Amino acid sequence: MAEFLSGMKRTVRCGEVTADMVGQEVTVMGWTNRRRNLGSLLFFQIRDISGIVQAVLDSNKADEALFSKAETVRLEYVIAVRGKVLRRTGPNVNPNMKTGEVEIEISELRILSEAEVTPFNVGDANAGEALRLKYRYLDLRREDLQRNLIVRSKIAQTTRKYLSDNGFLEIETPFLGKSTPEGARDYLVPSRVHQGKFYALPQSPQIFKQLLMVSGMDRYFQIVKCFRDEDLRANRQPEFTQIDIEMSFVDKEEDVFEIIEGLISAIFKDVKGLELKRPFARMAYADAMANYGSDKPDLRFDMKLRDITGIVDGCGFGVFENAAKSGSVRCVVLKNHESDVSRKEIDKLTDLVKTYKAKGLAYYGKTADGADRCSFAKFVPAEFLDRLAAELCLENNDIAFIVADADDETTCVSLGALRCHLAEKFSLIDKDRYEILWLTDFPLFEYSEDEGRFVAKHHPFTSPKNEDVPLMKTAPEKVRAKAYDLVINGEEAGGGSLRIYNRDIQKLMFETLGFTDEEIARKFGFFVNAFNYGTPPHGGIAFGLDRLTMLLTGATSIKDVIAFPKMQNACDLMTEAPDVVEDKQLKELGIEISAGKD
Amino acid sequence: MAEFLSGMKRTVRCGEVTADMVGQEVTVMGWTNRRRNLGSLLFFQIRDISGIVQAVLDSNKADEALFSKAETVRLEYVIAVRGKVLRRTGPNVNPNMKTGEVEIEISELRILSEAEVTPFNVGDANAGEALRLKYRYLDLRREDLQRNLIVRSKIAQTTRKYLSDNGFLEIETPFLGKSTPEGARDYLVPSRVHQGKFYALPQSPQIFKQLLMVSGMDRYFQIVKCFRDEDLRANRQPEFTQIDIEMSFVDKEEDVFEIIEGLISAIFKDVKGLELKRPFARMAYADAMANYGSDKPDLRFDMKLRDITGIVDGCGFGVFENAAKSGSVRCVVLKNHESDVSRKEIDKLTDLVKTYKAKGLAYYGKTADGADRCSFAKFVPAEFLDRLAAELCLENNDIAFIVADADDETTCVSLGALRCHLAEKFSLIDKDRYEILWLTDFPLFEYSEDEGRFVAKHHPFTSPKNEDVPLMKTAPEKVRAKAYDLVINGEEAGGGSLRIYNRDIQKLMFETLGFTDEEIARKFGFFVNAFNYGTPPHGGIAFGLDRLTMLLTGATSIKDVIAFPKMQNACDLMTEAPDVVEDKQLKELGIEISAGKD
Repeated sequence: MAEFLSGMKRTVRCGEVTADMVGQEVTVMGWTNRRRNLGSLLFFQIRDISGIVQAVLDSNKADEALFSKAETVRLEYVIAVRGKVLRRTGPNVNPNMKTGEVEIEISELRILSEAEVTPFNVGDANAGEALRLKYRYLDLRREDLQRNLIVRSKIAQTTRKYLSDNGFLEIETPFLGKSTPEGARDYLVPSRVHQGKFYALPQSPQIFKQLLMVSGMDRYFQIVKCFRDEDLRANRQPEFTQIDIEMSFVDKEEDVFEIIEGLISAIFKDVKGLELKRPFARMAYADAMANYGSDKPDLRFDMKLRDITGIVDGCGFGVFENAAKSGSVRCVVLKNHESDVSRKEIDKLTDLVKTYKAKGLAYYGKTADGADRCSFAKFVPAEFLDRLAAELCLENNDIAFIVADADDETTCVSLGALRCHLAEKFSLIDKDRYEILWLTDFPLFEYSEDEGRFVAKHHPFTSPKNEDVPLMKTAPEKVRAKAYDLVINGEEAGGGSLRIYNRDIQKLMFETLGFTDEEIARKFGFFVNAFNYGTPPHGGIAFGLDRLTMLLTGATSIKDVIAFPKMQNACDLMTEAPDVVEDKQLKELGIEISAGKD
Repeated sequence: MAEFLSGMKRTVRCGEVTADMVGQEVTVMGWTNRRRNLGSLLFFQIRDISGIVQAVLDSNKADEALFSKAETVRLEYVIAVRGKVLRRTGPNVNPNMKTGEVEIEISELRILSEAEVTPFNVGDANAGEALRLKYRYLDLRREDLQRNLIVRSKIAQTTRKYLSDNGFLEIETPFLGKSTPEGARDYLVPSRVHQGKFYALPQSPQIFKQLLMVSGMDRYFQIVKCFRDEDLRANRQPEFTQIDIEMSFVDKEEDVFEIIEGLISAIFKDVKGLELKRPFARMAYADAMANYGSDKPDLRFDMKLRDITGIVDGCGFGVFENAAKSGSVRCVVLKNHESDVSRKEIDKLTDLVKTYKAKGLAYYGKTADGADRCSFAKFVPAEFLDRLAAELCLENNDIAFIVADADDETTCVSLGALRCHLAEKFSLIDKDRYEILWLTDFPLFEYSEDEGRFVAKHHPFTSPKNEDVPLMKTAPEKVRAKAYDLVINGEEAGGGSLRIYNRDIQKLMFETLGFTDEEIARKFGFFVNAFNYGTPPHGGIAFGLDRLTMLLTGATSIKDVIAFPKMQNACDLMTEAPDVVEDKQLKELGIEISAGKD
């Protein structure tokens, strides 16, 4: 029979009962994590968010009513316990438990809430995912999920404190916004007052944060939910959280970097106790592609891409020679693992690079005995292989994987993917390390074969580098943007840019994109007009809080850093959202369901 | 012709250029707030979020190119100015300006962005509201709107810091939730993946925050947008921001009050520099109704309701005598303003109380000369009036307004409204004062004539007072709830309750509300089930951040504390949301517009 808490007050959290409290009386409250009945001795583990503490009741000392009540306590009952802290001795000390040196001798016990048998064991991360999501409130009793949410909260608090201390204002932007034809698919919200019209949930506060700069708010931030109605890939959620930042009177990347490096350093300090080395590394996009085949290189391991285009001329192997003409021949060298790469493994690696559009994968290695292992030996003279081995400093048990393609980007990107795959497979990554860098000098445009025109790689308000402005008319593909990503351990943690604040350059930008005035008005509406009334130089960045929390907790699933996540099909198994609604509701909105009709 | 900022760096904000910088070189950036051309002297006011500073250019000293460039600067141009800080002398000192003792002698000027003539004068709060909302980014350049948003950001930061320091975790709850049949109207979001089904935007995170307590998160908070699709009254917005708080292992109101008083005190300290007296006042619902005719009494002025039911028996005036039988006769006394209350004014006051269901308004006062002024003198003996005057301590120029009704609530509520109206009209309210109190001991139930049953005054998970539990079966109308509001200056700033954590009491609650098991399952679904696995005693509160910001800034419109507000018809005049969307979008969602069809 459950009791009231009444006047009883918690004096300490379970995980915080320490040896220096021995002899004191404490009151703890929490869930019954374990119980053991040794006949005359009852042991309880009591759990709250801070940890677990053991409590004990001895029938020889305790009053009979208390003992019988204690015997009725089952797993997950919520109890309050008052008692003296005792020091455990000898084999009873549990060095694996923070509170393992002590236990509480129960003098008072209240059963605050009884519990039915749970559908899976609380704390069991291996129970079926669907079951755990349906009973998310029980799965959230698991220690590592609680720790993840604690880290997430800490990141948010540190972010807000740091930015506030640096003159940033937290300003909320609307959730009920307007659908824009560009970008990803919007979630729509039918308007009841204006039937036939719709709001859209924001994909990002981009427009609003730039308007806040136009309005003179100087420095803005917000930690805010954003929405994209896309078919979910792993580690995506329909609603996700962005740390969104914008600042005025800056027009160089370094102005933003300085502030943001302070922020990231503060987060790592507060959450991990780590002092990051500043300034962070910088790497130009072109270098990242050439050396790592990626715009988010993982620098926790080396294994750079090697360019051998220059030495294949006249080697006799047509695949290499043809690729070298317009594209490139590059490779990665796997050191000291040739013997671990079976023929079958090479087939798998070939399949991998093919998903990145490479036509095949060549290899050349040295066995542990120093023998050649080469997929193209019969096409080339021995001297070429010697030269290649020398060029790549191949040692015994090394193997080089080579991609040759008429398009250099294909060569790089496929090898970049291979590089990461090999590092993961052969455990070349030091998981305790954080490698952080700024990726800079992105191209401003990319050519869209679909649309037959240049499109903005970021968005049409991203500023070109000042010195590249003259190229906008003559060689758009060569124009670099004042855009940047912050890359941590091979993940894009954040990205942003300086924005255009000069009307002539904005005009040039739209011309290069081939927009007519009518298109500009339709796509960007009032936003372009806002820039006509005095626009400060400004720029910003946005971080994914979910991703950042994963990086700092080591969580591998985005669901593990969100309190109430959705499944890949955008369902919430606990609340059963989305669900059917009443006809009356649809009628009020002036919409009806057409699905299933024809 | 606009220029790049290039390497130029702001060294100080405009409003922060002070007399102790005289002689130093500074660089400021901002909008041209004013300009004067005295032929050989050019004066500029440069404005940023921190304030305004004057800059000056003398053609006798400046180089010619600089002077001609400066002559092209127009209002709202964004400029950067480098120069020496000079002390102003004699009549040039402007004591009304923070920076009025100094000015900057311009040695370098960059025009960063030109500006067209703005559609209204920046800073003009009297321009038409629709125009100002359409160009919100220009209206936001107004000093008092910027100050409001600064206060709002400060409230949020103080809240987060205080709660984090007290062991609360900030945990985000979903925006894409499930529509619930109870409560206000939901905003719906059609699901594309599950056509015919809908998400709902949250009206509050109530369910989730209680589940977080069930999951052992111990203490939670969130500053979060909530949504209600209701016909907007003044000072309501379809999306509003809530400071949402919940904590475990508490079951008395005082446990919550202690934490929250600390929070409110911290906010008043940080924002207003005020030390609030703690503990705050407490007032039971019954007392508030009897003395102030309101559950959110404004204590900045006195003028309590006076109960004269006990003295009207046998007075001869049927209206009073009949009301006294089952209801009450009460009044408020307006001191020293009888002569300001015309016959016409009394008609208006009568109309006012009638909107609160009172049948009429009687009055009895003393003129400045001491003569009687009474609406019911002819029905009562003179001795009754003498007795009434004595009872109410009526002095010359005082007047009492009396409501008599067979329903005491009608008497109280209508007089409560009258009390506030009179105080406002006769300027009895000290606007610089903050009067804060806890309203406690709300009834748990109220009887719904519509439904012919008791309904929960808060929600069905609100706990009754322990000592009132036995009344639940016998006299539900007498059961008091562990519910509370925080009232500031007559406004409900926040409200909350302790929740039921005992299954037997929850069962009793549902029985009193007359719910069948089927109804319980339909209305509350999985949520009720969650409480079966060990529920800690818990409770919480929610504050309206918009309201709180209004209270602390003195803003009278909610639009003045929100960066991008909506009109009363839920439109955003700037973005023109809501708007029509493309057919393709509706098709993907499996919905069509039925409005206008039949």
